[in-house]
Amino acid sequence: MSLHLNNDNTAQLQELYAEMRPHSLYPLWEVLSMLVTPTPRSSAKPWKWDYDSARDYLLRAGDLISAEKAERRVLILENPGLPGSSSITTSLYAGLQLILPGEVAPCHRHTPCALRFVLEGEGAYTAVDGEKVIMRPFDLVLTPNWQWHDHGNDTDAPMIWLDGLDIPTVLHFDASFAERLEQSSHPETARPGDSLNRYGHNMRPMRGSSADRRPAHQPLFHYPYKQWRAALRELAAAAVPDPHLGHALEFLNPADGGSIMPTVTAHVRLLPAGFASAPRRATDGTVFVVVEGRARATVADQEFELQARDLLVVPSWQELRLMAESELILFGYSDRAAQEKLGLFREARA
Amino acid sequence: MSLHLNNDNTAQLQELYAEMRPHSLYPLWEVLSMLVTPTPRSSAKPWKWDYDSARDYLLRAGDLISAEKAERRVLILENPGLPGSSSITTSLYAGLQLILPGEVAPCHRHTPCALRFVLEGEGAYTAVDGEKVIMRPFDLVLTPNWQWHDHGNDTDAPMIWLDGLDIPTVLHFDASFAERLEQSSHPETARPGDSLNRYGHNMRPMRGSSADRRPAHQPLFHYPYKQWRAALRELAAAAVPDPHLGHALEFLNPADGGSIMPTVTAHVRLLPAGFASAPRRATDGTVFVVVEGRARATVADQEFELQARDLLVVPSWQELRLMAESELILFGYSDRAAQEKLGLFREARA
Amino acid sequence: MSLHLNNDNTAQLQELYAEMRPHSLYPLWEVLSMLVTPTPRSSAKPWKWDYDSARDYLLRAGDLISAEKAERRVLILENPGLPGSSSITTSLYAGLQLILPGEVAPCHRHTPCALRFVLEGEGAYTAVDGEKVIMRPFDLVLTPNWQWHDHGNDTDAPMIWLDGLDIPTVLHFDASFAERLEQSSHPETARPGDSLNRYGHNMRPMRGSSADRRPAHQPLFHYPYKQWRAALRELAAAAVPDPHLGHALEFLNPADGGSIMPTVTAHVRLLPAGFASAPRRATDGTVFVVVEGRARATVADQEFELQARDLLVVPSWQELRLMAESELILFGYSDRAAQEKLGLFREARA
Amino acid sequence: MSLHLNNDNTAQLQELYAEMRPHSLYPLWEVLSMLVTPTPRSSAKPWKWDYDSARDYLLRAGDLISAEKAERRVLILENPGLPGSSSITTSLYAGLQLILPGEVAPCHRHTPCALRFVLEGEGAYTAVDGEKVIMRPFDLVLTPNWQWHDHGNDTDAPMIWLDGLDIPTVLHFDASFAERLEQSSHPETARPGDSLNRYGHNMRPMRGSSADRRPAHQPLFHYPYKQWRAALRELAAAAVPDPHLGHALEFLNPADGGSIMPTVTAHVRLLPAGFASAPRRATDGTVFVVVEGRARATVADQEFELQARDLLVVPSWQELRLMAESELILFGYSDRAAQEKLGLFREARA
Repeated sequence: MSLHLNNDNTAQLQELYAEMRPHSLYPLWEVLSMLVTPTPRSSAKPWKWDYDSARDYLLRAGDLISAEKAERRVLILENPGLPGSSSITTSLYAGLQLILPGEVAPCHRHTPCALRFVLEGEGAYTAVDGEKVIMRPFDLVLTPNWQWHDHGNDTDAPMIWLDGLDIPTVLHFDASFAERLEQSSHPETARPGDSLNRYGHNMRPMRGSSADRRPAHQPLFHYPYKQWRAALRELAAAAVPDPHLGHALEFLNPADGGSIMPTVTAHVRLLPAGFASAPRRATDGTVFVVVEGRARATVADQEFELQARDLLVVPSWQELRLMAESELILFGYSDRAAQEKLGLFREARA
Repeated sequence: MSLHLNNDNTAQLQELYAEMRPHSLYPLWEVLSMLVTPTPRSSAKPWKWDYDSARDYLLRAGDLISAEKAERRVLILENPGLPGSSSITTSLYAGLQLILPGEVAPCHRHTPCALRFVLEGEGAYTAVDGEKVIMRPFDLVLTPNWQWHDHGNDTDAPMIWLDGLDIPTVLHFDASFAERLEQSSHPETARPGDSLNRYGHNMRPMRGSSADRRPAHQPLFHYPYKQWRAALRELAAAAVPDPHLGHALEFLNPADGGSIMPTVTAHVRLLPAGFASAPRRATDGTVFVVVEGRARATVADQEFELQARDLLVVPSWQELRLMAESELILFGYSDRAAQEKLGLFREARA
Repeated sequence: MSLHLNNDNTAQLQELYAEMRPHSLYPLWEVLSMLVTPTPRSSAKPWKWDYDSARDYLLRAGDLISAEKAERRVLILENPGLPGSSSITTSLYAGLQLILPGEVAPCHRHTPCALRFVLEGEGAYTAVDGEKVIMRPFDLVLTPNWQWHDHGNDTDAPMIWLDGLDIPTVLHFDASFAERLEQSSHPETARPGDSLNRYGHNMRPMRGSSADRRPAHQPLFHYPYKQWRAALRELAAAAVPDPHLGHALEFLNPADGGSIMPTVTAHVRLLPAGFASAPRRATDGTVFVVVEGRARATVADQEFELQARDLLVVPSWQELRLMAESELILFGYSDRAAQEKLGLFREARA
Repeated sequence: MSLHLNNDNTAQLQELYAEMRPHSLYPLWEVLSMLVTPTPRSSAKPWKWDYDSARDYLLRAGDLISAEKAERRVLILENPGLPGSSSITTSLYAGLQLILPGEVAPCHRHTPCALRFVLEGEGAYTAVDGEKVIMRPFDLVLTPNWQWHDHGNDTDAPMIWLDGLDIPTVLHFDASFAERLEQSSHPETARPGDSLNRYGHNMRPMRGSSADRRPAHQPLFHYPYKQWRAALRELAAAAVPDPHLGHALEFLNPADGGSIMPTVTAHVRLLPAGFASAPRRATDGTVFVVVEGRARATVADQEFELQARDLLVVPSWQELRLMAESELILFGYSDRAAQEKLGLFREARA
């Protein structure tokens, strides 16, 4: 699809280009091959972040700036192929957030939607529209689009989690809105665990009931590690691993059986010790976190050694193979939800 | 909207009617007020079945006919206002099924969809497309439209449950299909609990995974008492009861956040001791089972005393008030799912 | 699936049945084969109504009772296999309505939804929520669930149309509501043709615009003969007829691309002269009207000669073959929309 | 939400930043106010392209490069605030395409979806999966995601149209796929007008019919000027103009009543002579084409004089006011469809 102009008109074309440019006109044929590529070709790179080393920097930042001053004390995991973008894939953001004992990350809301995946510490909270979730390691917590949220750490140890947001997508559509609450914490509107109890067991408050308090399209925002790990291990005990995925469970929004948020899909997978996945590629660039175990990941032609809490990004359409050195549990999130809505998702399995 | 003809043409009209009749023509104006009524007016009646007395008859039937010979050994709860209809409301069927130790109810499938709500006994199974569910008291088990199912009792005690089906609706649309499997039991295709584990925790096998074995639109068929009761009690501990419903949770299909089956909605509710519900009416005729507690139900102008395992039917648009004499837990199912799809559901709260 | 009891317990069973009966309990095994049949088995019959003869009776009724007095002056086409039901199939109603010059059928609304298919006369109107449609032969006009509607004939000739409603379905779900407007005509709220213009051309008023006045889920209620006939004839000119259907176009609700109303599907088909359709059966009992041409219809093992304006009902799952003696155009409506929503629709093509 | 660090730690922070950078870690607090803004803040600018001047450049390009060599001979309308992006808004692409007599733009397909809005010439064709549409001025023609399409000009005059695509969005999600057909033209698979006839009149081929040949989710790809203009003028004759929009009709996909393509919404509007629209802003950056008339547009604080065929871009959340100097007809397209699916669309009306 590329174009190699090789004719006598080159000079005249260049002249035309120069004349048009101030009129905001530009020749498609000079860039068509970059705009409409035969397969995905962003410059995003596969990359791994060592948790230990990232954690050291994060704790150093903790000494230098307060959560309140920073609003959110987060180190962005920026894809080295997308410098200056604050993005981990072309459409997604990732960061590591630290809250120290006694700190509060003040209450705000915004159009980007966020997931939190806990990496370290236990007992800090995220409050969503005034309902607290007590966060434990490897819990998944959502703060959906335009819902008030604040975080606080009443424990005596630092708390660290992964933030996954669709900020680049919201910026792409030029649709960012945000506001801060006057108070740093939202008034408490429900008991911790209330939403999970009401909406998390294949049930919901009867329609029309006064107990039906969460947004109809987004009732659930806590997916505890304890629950998802049990389900994943049961699956592993019952089934033969899928050759490309191992044992893999997607998190769902119980309101519609769809993805956890309109733009973001998340899943967990378990690979038995010694399992080597068959090559697979998909258009949804994916961020992985190692929950348990050790593995070697091959992305396109690059190899990465992974251990607990390490973070790996696999860009769109780059082939992934995983070799589990011990039983491996991964969490992953991607933009598959958005891609499916827009008719863009594809995958290929070797 | 009724019509009182009172004119000189009566005789001529009667003559016309008589002439038309063999041509399958009939005057609307003589029946319009019966066909299009200002409010629902079926002859279905509120009614209560004492569990103990129904159970006695059922056990007597157990002495006289085998499950295999009967295909299903069930006593139909027929609404006394709808004699000969085998219906408990205009659109729904209910029956009490007995399986004795060692018996099997042979494998078949049909377009009516069914729910089972266990009343007595523990350890018999329902198998759906070859996956067994071990049934315990007050578990809800589904056998959706056109899925193979058989039941068996390997325990040493009788097992009794409520069958709730949409048979009248399938007959109404003249769309009944059924077939028997050659063997009385379906080959076992999965371990008991497999579907609940895969689809029952706000997760599902990743799309495209070989572990995704259930029908996409109907992945879950077991809602254990243990789970729903805990959720209901938590709700009761956290919330003020809704004045019309008490504490009420609907069962959902996790594939789409909708009703458990295309035609049937089910829910449970808890009324604290002494709670008296405000009057409510709705177009979905509902069958209730008392799970725990004692109550007085007033339906339109009739009163019923209820105790554990008793069954009550409340027809469309008849006002229901419940007075809980002790903490009351009810299970209920209705045709609300169908009515909502067809644009017919209404409710009124006093 | 039928049961032939042939044992020594017969007498004891009969005794049990007699004892249970007053308790509204009934043995399933005695009726199971009637309730859950291997294929549809209602007693609805295929039947044809000669238009000319039905028209004669209708005009005689016109002499004997006024539209206002009758509220609607309609002869019900009652299926001879369903006597006393006022139904043409198990789930649908059909009638022939007459409005004489100067008459008004007063304004009311009800939960049954209705279609009108004009058979004779030109220039009478149906008003839906105050917007008039001028009715011409073979126009399709809808009066959806709970929308106000009145009819009037300002011309000097009688006007006759087919009414197709889902009355039996609304009664089945015991969800009939109706009310009359105080005035016989609804105040005029829009110009004739307004809705068709706004919603009928693959467009709709921009969301949020003050011009978006119809219900979002049901914006269109007029499908003119002139338009549908042109589309059907174009299709016939462009395509090879489908062996089972001929050339067939379904009417759609432009709001969602689904059926014209939640319970009712309608279509038109054209069979070239000499075309004989291959046998097909489907679970949606269907009412046909001959718009143009002559044909022989074979339904199961019965034959019917059809000519313009004749009406034919084909019950569920009865095999239909059509032999077009001249170019044949048919209009048909059925309950397929409801059956699909409830998971019940099936068809088989030989 | 911005951050003004003003403390003694500045130096230490800078040191930390420098150390982290090679590890692809970056401090969120330094960029948070750019990433999550209180309102949309892209650097996209409002801009107008004079048709006459753009046309001159395009014709000059026509002298210098062939359609075949260019693959598509198009001048990109690049937003002057987004240099090097080939984008007209953050998420959309626009270009002016020229096909000279006798030329063919060869057959290809790609994941970006495209609309064509004809500006000049009559009689060239676009073929979609082998079905030709003869293009006339101000017709809207779609070439949906992954459908084969080629263009050709068999007339003796140049043909110019606006191309509107979602290329930036496909690149954002890193999901571009494309391929060329070996032949420059797709084999003809249907008669011109076939799809419009089958799917464009609130009807579709009966499901299961062999005539149902287009993709179920995208059956229609031609919205003729003749039809949309008549509908728009009828609306203008019948209704009071909406104060913010004038008379405005959105184009719909008849398969689902939604937007014309998964990412793109399109509409037309008519403003009576002298009409001045009240200020409105929306998050969907919009590209407008003047079809008829003259107007003054005020976008934020910039004014633009518009006449026939001029093109105007209004970025996200910039306030638009239109003053029609004569009766004004506009065509517009935006990314509202994508924004609504992802939960991002907002508008504000003064």
